[in-house]
Amino acid sequence: MRQLKLSKAFTLIEPGPVVLVTTCAAGRANVMTISWTMVLDFTPLFAFTTGPWNHSFAALEQQRECVIAIPTVDLLDTVVGIGTCSGRDTDKFARFGIAALAGPVLGVPLIEAGCAAWMECRLIPERHTEDAYDTCFAEVVAAAADPAVFADGRWDFRADNAALHTLHHLGAGNFARASDVIRAQPLQAA
Amino acid sequence: MRQLKLSKAFTLIEPGPVVLVTTCAAGRANVMTISWTMVLDFTPLFAFTTGPWNHSFAALEQQRECVIAIPTVDLLDTVVGIGTCSGRDTDKFARFGIAALAGPVLGVPLIEAGCAAWMECRLIPERHTEDAYDTCFAEVVAAAADPAVFADGRWDFRADNAALHTLHHLGAGNFARASDVIRAQPLQAA
Repeated sequence: MRQLKLSKAFTLIEPGPVVLVTTCAAGRANVMTISWTMVLDFTPLFAFTTGPWNHSFAALEQQRECVIAIPTVDLLDTVVGIGTCSGRDTDKFARFGIAALAGPVLGVPLIEAGCAAWMECRLIPERHTEDAYDTCFAEVVAAAADPAVFADGRWDFRADNAALHTLHHLGAGNFARASDVIRAQPLQAA
Repeated sequence: MRQLKLSKAFTLIEPGPVVLVTTCAAGRANVMTISWTMVLDFTPLFAFTTGPWNHSFAALEQQRECVIAIPTVDLLDTVVGIGTCSGRDTDKFARFGIAALAGPVLGVPLIEAGCAAWMECRLIPERHTEDAYDTCFAEVVAAAADPAVFADGRWDFRADNAALHTLHHLGAGNFARASDVIRAQPLQAA
């Protein structure tokens, strides 16, 4: 991974990939898989939605820090495994053999292996959206991306790095791979 | 397009596609291209972020209704064209030769040609997120999808319907196509 300028980090989430959110509360690391994320601002700010049914939500409310990592196609089986058990009764890092590094600013547990990028985040105090919509607003304090798939401030999906492309949840356990980079042709006025 | 059960509509946005948001205020239709969207709840509720720099924002604040349509690869040139001019001085429907239908519940202008699905929406009164983050929360009141690419309540991306796949913004005018449907293999505990 290579450290990323914070002003480029919004691009990581903009295409809508599945993400892994790692937390730590009372000394216990946990990780959840979610798809409900959004860029809020270029600065960068993000929103993500989870909820009280999710064991990580209590850790988020308590510690107000997390890392959002972006897993690749290579990590799909683990991503789904993480999403189908609970931190309530499972140490997911042990169960799936995941190494937890420490975020550089806040020290939040961080997953690099099998991921294309990560952002260490601090929650913004917006209790109404948390309480009414289970939605957290977060500011990024550090970010990094794998130069093999993210270069010059944007995703660089090519045929020769397909295993590093992002996952997009289509419903019912089906995922699409983001691929086939295309650009628009300028239109003449009708 | 075929009418979609509202309980399935969250799946349309979950993979993070680029969307077109149509509005109407003072009898004038407009449309903008955005990527910053999120599912808020299965019911379905959505969030999307725009801002006062955007001409559509004033129409949203005034009328509090919109249609979120999901364009396909086929519409890429128009999608980028819409995103690079302003409704302030341009009738985008005329300029890009777009037909505007009327949404079935609210009558909001609606784009079907070149789109895979649409959702007619009413804004939820959450003025703080609008004012502080340029973020609107919306509930869906009607939805439809093209059965050629959305079937059994989920996206059905295949090699033979690639022109109907969704667009995902990678930055700097580059887009990925969501493709290659994959499923996870169950993991054994480590």
